[in-house]
Amino acid sequence: MTNGLPNWQERYNAKFILTIRVRVLDAPGKLAELLETVAEAGASVGDIRIAGADSTHKVRDVQLFLTDEPRRKAAIAAVEGLDFVELLRVTDEVLEIHRGGTIETRARVPLATVMDLRMVYTPGVASVCELIAHAPEAARTYTTIANRIAIVTNGTAVLGLGDIGPVAGMPVMEGKAAILAHFVGVSAEPVLLNSKNPDEIIDVVEHIAPGYGAIQLEDIAAPACFEIEERLQARLDRPVFHDDQHGTATVAVAGLINALEQTGRSPADCRGVILGAGAAGQAIARFLVDFGIRDLVVCDSKGAISLNRTKGMDEWKRRLAGFTNPDGVDGAIADVITDRNLFIGVSRPNSVTRAMIESMAPDSIVFALANPVSEIPVSEALAAGAAVAVDGRGMNNALAYPGIFRGALDAAATQITAAMKLAAARTLAACATDGLLPDMLDHAVHAQVSAAVAAAWNPADTRTEPSARVAART
Amino acid sequence: MTNGLPNWQERYNAKFILTIRVRVLDAPGKLAELLETVAEAGASVGDIRIAGADSTHKVRDVQLFLTDEPRRKAAIAAVEGLDFVELLRVTDEVLEIHRGGTIETRARVPLATVMDLRMVYTPGVASVCELIAHAPEAARTYTTIANRIAIVTNGTAVLGLGDIGPVAGMPVMEGKAAILAHFVGVSAEPVLLNSKNPDEIIDVVEHIAPGYGAIQLEDIAAPACFEIEERLQARLDRPVFHDDQHGTATVAVAGLINALEQTGRSPADCRGVILGAGAAGQAIARFLVDFGIRDLVVCDSKGAISLNRTKGMDEWKRRLAGFTNPDGVDGAIADVITDRNLFIGVSRPNSVTRAMIESMAPDSIVFALANPVSEIPVSEALAAGAAVAVDGRGMNNALAYPGIFRGALDAAATQITAAMKLAAARTLAACATDGLLPDMLDHAVHAQVSAAVAAAWNPADTRTEPSARVAART
Repeated sequence: MTNGLPNWQERYNAKFILTIRVRVLDAPGKLAELLETVAEAGASVGDIRIAGADSTHKVRDVQLFLTDEPRRKAAIAAVEGLDFVELLRVTDEVLEIHRGGTIETRARVPLATVMDLRMVYTPGVASVCELIAHAPEAARTYTTIANRIAIVTNGTAVLGLGDIGPVAGMPVMEGKAAILAHFVGVSAEPVLLNSKNPDEIIDVVEHIAPGYGAIQLEDIAAPACFEIEERLQARLDRPVFHDDQHGTATVAVAGLINALEQTGRSPADCRGVILGAGAAGQAIARFLVDFGIRDLVVCDSKGAISLNRTKGMDEWKRRLAGFTNPDGVDGAIADVITDRNLFIGVSRPNSVTRAMIESMAPDSIVFALANPVSEIPVSEALAAGAAVAVDGRGMNNALAYPGIFRGALDAAATQITAAMKLAAARTLAACATDGLLPDMLDHAVHAQVSAAVAAAWNPADTRTEPSARVAART
Repeated sequence: MTNGLPNWQERYNAKFILTIRVRVLDAPGKLAELLETVAEAGASVGDIRIAGADSTHKVRDVQLFLTDEPRRKAAIAAVEGLDFVELLRVTDEVLEIHRGGTIETRARVPLATVMDLRMVYTPGVASVCELIAHAPEAARTYTTIANRIAIVTNGTAVLGLGDIGPVAGMPVMEGKAAILAHFVGVSAEPVLLNSKNPDEIIDVVEHIAPGYGAIQLEDIAAPACFEIEERLQARLDRPVFHDDQHGTATVAVAGLINALEQTGRSPADCRGVILGAGAAGQAIARFLVDFGIRDLVVCDSKGAISLNRTKGMDEWKRRLAGFTNPDGVDGAIADVITDRNLFIGVSRPNSVTRAMIESMAPDSIVFALANPVSEIPVSEALAAGAAVAVDGRGMNNALAYPGIFRGALDAAATQITAAMKLAAARTLAACATDGLLPDMLDHAVHAQVSAAVAAAWNPADTRTEPSARVAART
């Protein structure tokens, strides 16, 4: 059985990537001794390159992967403790790659001659403005709007870091935008909002929406994210898509399609539990119910979410209880998970024990997606009897959102519908050759997702909530 | 005396640039006959290239410059009327260059390997976010914010086209952004605001400001633009710069510095009149007063703006009257201009007569900057006795704003001060080798303006209104 994770991903679980420049005594065994020392301090060694030499020493750049701050300090201290090594410089490669930011605005047109200028800018540009003033649909052809999205965040739920504010979240928004530009040629621009008030956020986004073909909401904490997305979708004539919800859910369903095939199950066979009722958890629940999984319980830190429960509920959890948990199960995750065959965690690191996995039905499917450390290590879940186990590294939502936006923009969709998300999930599942999901570096995968999403757009079916049909039963 | 306009600009006063693909009978004189026909219809001919041939005909692409829609139609009809020519295709080159928009967001970093992805995006990016969360000033180094500006418009005063809305104004915003990217490497992003309410506009800009190093206001109609800029400058800790005011004023003052030198005058010798009290007119007036021109009258369509006048005044025109028009002159432009030696028009096409220029003092300076057609043709102003005459083609504000923003961002300025604008004007004046202003295609000019603006930033002198000192006299 597979753990769903191609080997090349296992190697890079580093939080810090340093390059140390060291002057090492040029004598047999000294380089090996240096490498042994840093390995003992907890560093994994990457590329090693000669950066210089003199009659007695070699200068080398040695790349180190480190999983946390204590190991980073320990590794550097260990190098400094070696009498045959002089530490010349420490470079944080992640910081270096982010220096000056990871995106930029560029001119798509030449500006080398007076003629260029007079066509791109005044006076020539006036004829383009006049055309659009008289035929507004021409903006789709003669401006960048139809290829441009806003990545809107208030920084209240950035990665696993929580509410660090929009400016500290900017490197993530830039990374998302860089991925969109590189893989699908969408121009994405971060919009950093200094507000936590949904009314204000909705108002601002509505006022700036004319400049964008779609709005990507990003790293906005639940439950505000649900209200913001729902109200913006109702107000705007263009797609509004909260990636932490639907991007994550799309990738999870894509992986599940292949996990079900590997374990010989259909959606109707699944007895599922989701741990975590934030943005991702609620969106995955809606998508799974729509996908045909009837027996599904969502747990938050207080246990199963049911129509019986009164504590720690809000409007959105009540809605969730209305279309999940058909048997009215109550209790903690440790009880709820027993005998179930599908676990999806989008909660906290190390929140699931080996015993919990052992209590599941045979050949269970375990998606432990908490960031940056999963609910339970993949290896431990497999050892506890899971047939398929995967963590967040194998479930990157960057597999889904580029193609979803590209497809929606290409189709001039006014919504990103349930059908479009399902088309993306099925395409991703079909593209996987090794493990549950395809390689996100493969441009062909993004192109296929884009095409499938565009083809799935149907103005007559603008349902964005996969669960809408099911919700009617409550 | 010069008309301030390099020859290369005179050639391209076309509004429409078409390329017609024509199949022309391959016989002596037929090409000449075609060219004569289009010239008679009002087209100026540009490049001619062979696009194909058969035994009897040649296929050619012929570029045509046309100043207006009737000439465009006439030229095409004339070609269609020739029996030895088949018109195969008409391409609007301006529209073609704007197809898909003139800017795009690009990744500044490689995304070819798993390592790249894990540094640009998760998990590596988390360490950059954490750094900024703990040391907010690191955002300046490790995000694009410090190199990024928002070009904010509501499309109420786009070029000479008026209130065409923000979407129809987008090609102008993109053109401005393309120029910023190309000449000074600033990442500018259009923000299209669907509001005409200053309170709303201020609110939206304040909420999105954290993502930008500076705010460029653009094509917002007077007098709302004054209030919006003033209130935003007071609220934000980063530059807010309305280019239609200060970019235009900076270029006008730069040109004036050289015009004064050519006519052997000092600012104190000037008896000036400005026609037009919109964004540009008021900003030029403030700058000129600060520059040392004491005798200056601003006229709008109702005549001179003075403290005596009550009709058609608002808060901003009252302020203007407070620091201009020291002698309390009243009356229409035709009266006010008499015996003055400096005219700056930022009003309407053909609003100044030859007689008015003739009524000016000898060797007068005439800047007729109305767009797209000047208050009076340069040639006519010169014939009427002006020593220096220039129109808007010689006074492109794209000479100023790229270097002003680059310099302000480089200096981490919190305001674009009067001193910075004056530094830009003086540098532009000094860079001119032929005519009043330098060639805006010269990257070295923009680099020099940038450096001068950055050097002029002084946190102890954040005066942004050149007239503040002078206004005290009222």
